[in-house]
Amino acid sequence: MSASVSPLAPKSLPEVPPVPGVAFATAEAGIRYKGRTDVLLMAFAPGTTVAGVTTRSRCPSAPVEWCRDLLKKGKASGLVVNSGNANAFTGKKGREATKLTAEIGAKALGCKPGEVFLASTGVIGEPLDATKFAGVLEATAARLSGGPWEDAARAIMTTDTFPKLATARVLIDDVPVTISGIAKGAGMIAPDMATMLSFIFTDAPIAAGVLQAMLDKAVKTTFNAVTIDGDTSTSDTLLVFATGAAKARGVRPAKDPADPRLRAFRHTLKAVMADLAEQVARDGEGARKLVRVHVNGAVSNKSARRIAMSIANSPLVKTAVAGEDANWGRVVMAVGKAGEPAERDLLSISFGAIRVAHVGARDPSYDEAVVSDYMKSDVIDLTVEIGLGRGSDTVLTCDLTKEYVAINGDYRS
Amino acid sequence: MSASVSPLAPKSLPEVPPVPGVAFATAEAGIRYKGRTDVLLMAFAPGTTVAGVTTRSRCPSAPVEWCRDLLKKGKASGLVVNSGNANAFTGKKGREATKLTAEIGAKALGCKPGEVFLASTGVIGEPLDATKFAGVLEATAARLSGGPWEDAARAIMTTDTFPKLATARVLIDDVPVTISGIAKGAGMIAPDMATMLSFIFTDAPIAAGVLQAMLDKAVKTTFNAVTIDGDTSTSDTLLVFATGAAKARGVRPAKDPADPRLRAFRHTLKAVMADLAEQVARDGEGARKLVRVHVNGAVSNKSARRIAMSIANSPLVKTAVAGEDANWGRVVMAVGKAGEPAERDLLSISFGAIRVAHVGARDPSYDEAVVSDYMKSDVIDLTVEIGLGRGSDTVLTCDLTKEYVAINGDYRS
Repeated sequence: MSASVSPLAPKSLPEVPPVPGVAFATAEAGIRYKGRTDVLLMAFAPGTTVAGVTTRSRCPSAPVEWCRDLLKKGKASGLVVNSGNANAFTGKKGREATKLTAEIGAKALGCKPGEVFLASTGVIGEPLDATKFAGVLEATAARLSGGPWEDAARAIMTTDTFPKLATARVLIDDVPVTISGIAKGAGMIAPDMATMLSFIFTDAPIAAGVLQAMLDKAVKTTFNAVTIDGDTSTSDTLLVFATGAAKARGVRPAKDPADPRLRAFRHTLKAVMADLAEQVARDGEGARKLVRVHVNGAVSNKSARRIAMSIANSPLVKTAVAGEDANWGRVVMAVGKAGEPAERDLLSISFGAIRVAHVGARDPSYDEAVVSDYMKSDVIDLTVEIGLGRGSDTVLTCDLTKEYVAINGDYRS
Repeated sequence: MSASVSPLAPKSLPEVPPVPGVAFATAEAGIRYKGRTDVLLMAFAPGTTVAGVTTRSRCPSAPVEWCRDLLKKGKASGLVVNSGNANAFTGKKGREATKLTAEIGAKALGCKPGEVFLASTGVIGEPLDATKFAGVLEATAARLSGGPWEDAARAIMTTDTFPKLATARVLIDDVPVTISGIAKGAGMIAPDMATMLSFIFTDAPIAAGVLQAMLDKAVKTTFNAVTIDGDTSTSDTLLVFATGAAKARGVRPAKDPADPRLRAFRHTLKAVMADLAEQVARDGEGARKLVRVHVNGAVSNKSARRIAMSIANSPLVKTAVAGEDANWGRVVMAVGKAGEPAERDLLSISFGAIRVAHVGARDPSYDEAVVSDYMKSDVIDLTVEIGLGRGSDTVLTCDLTKEYVAINGDYRS
């Protein structure tokens, strides 16, 4: 595991206030790690709605399948998250473990197992011994409180080098409501899987369907626009819970996706998601630089996304950034291999504000020294103008360093 | 540049006999490297036919566009290959450079520029100064001979750690004909591009269209089944030249793709291509292990190829192999992210002959020690049974080591 905190980590953790209707506590269930918390138990006020997005993997983990099933109802009473074991590729045993975990959680919280959401992150293929939760969750339920949120963020970490939290306030019916979230990033420690888990909470009263529509739209440009190494986890899970507690303060429930009162909320939710997603990129294994890949002038936004991902996932581009080398030739290569409409003689490429290539050739004003100096920055903006249309997109990634290989390949030595 | 020869290099170079109708010589044009040959000039007997396959990149190099144009005629009199500069993303200047190179080559060989094929590998985005070829190619033309082939293989190397040659003999009309080839691999040294170049030669008399049909089929399971890091070069070029010199020994020209006399030739050509392709994988930057990814039971061969490529290009799978870790969980992840039909509960995964996962869970007989011992081998066979159909495929790759990052990211330090 990478011992030191990522140099790209936020300088300080945000002050996250309690979210009315949300109580939680953490514990050490000893799933895999020793001397640290590895389970998070949360309880939600009656009437809490939920929306979610899960991995696109064709081999999802047992908890992912469990959540997909529960999301159909859109009602949540509790959440149990464990780190240390992903309960993925565990077959029938895995499904039994999720059922047992939900039953133990429901007993501890005094609710139905069908309203207890689950997420697991950690080693894959190892059966998860859910019996370990038995005593633990009941004891944890006795300690439920509205904070501190850092404890929640820490309990779900695997190889993350820092806890990930974000919070914001926004007005609905002139009443301030809170949106707060935690995430764990694509940190990996063999034999663990990369997994992105994020849980967001608000006291706003919003119908599940409305929440889901907002989430589906916001995830495209936030969590789905982050790639560390192009490897999709079996367990990625993003859940948003709305307790509705703000009703007591006069906020009328939002049941219509077109409800104009949600405009500010929608933007704020997206901002919180973008904040957490960027923290995930800033904590990519071995990351020394945050890379923002901007693609403009593609034939469509979809095409721009594919080109941006081709660049962001290119080992050659990522190693060049690690080497502080403005190697735009590799960007050309990555554009070319994306399989999307692109014409060499229309391409322009910039690093930061410095245009290095223009209409199919090196920029006449190219000055290696100036660009090399820019490449020393912590955050690299890489912009490609395709020159064919009006499609654009931005993707976040990090550089590819020896540390990445060490984290993912060296643990046996 | 990686100084030492890849541990996966063949123990010895093959004895490559002259190919009747092919003469060549190498020289130092001083394009980029010092103290080594960087240009290869070849002359072909009158009536030589040619077929070719070039990169799928949407941003091909100027020489690639030149070759595509000439391939329409299917006639070749000469070939000029240089290392040190790829003449890619060089715009109008690049097109002028190819034209001038072909003219200089044609003058040296006494043929038409439109029959001189070109390939360049090396730095991208730098204008190629073709005037450097002027005196050089004429002097080189005076030294043309049938060997030694190692010189030809060495002149086209960039960061390859060993020259790549292959040769075979096969009977047509009971007359032995030769098939010999050279290749340069996906070695990279910043700011160079990864580029795969391969040139294959035979004295068999085969019509260009027939040769092209054979090549198109054979490339799918050979060169196109190799991936080092999923990064497609702007310059990949594979050309096959048939001089027809064997006619003098009684071989009748093959003008029909269905000609039964070509059956053995077709298989032998494919074998030579497979040999060269494997040498490319064995010389991947930083490679310490050759990985053969086998996928069976997919819904189609196309689907099997996509799943195999998803595994072979996964940084997590490749770093696990580098760490000698039989991390089949990451293989599950790579199958899952391929986006092809796959069901966790039908998957089986083997490393070598050891089945580690079966029908959606860890194999009951799983023994970490036994598998870890297997992972110490130079060549790792990774087999995935999808269990849905009859589609199968095999892809070659190598592991992802710190050396790869060093070669591609460290050159500035």
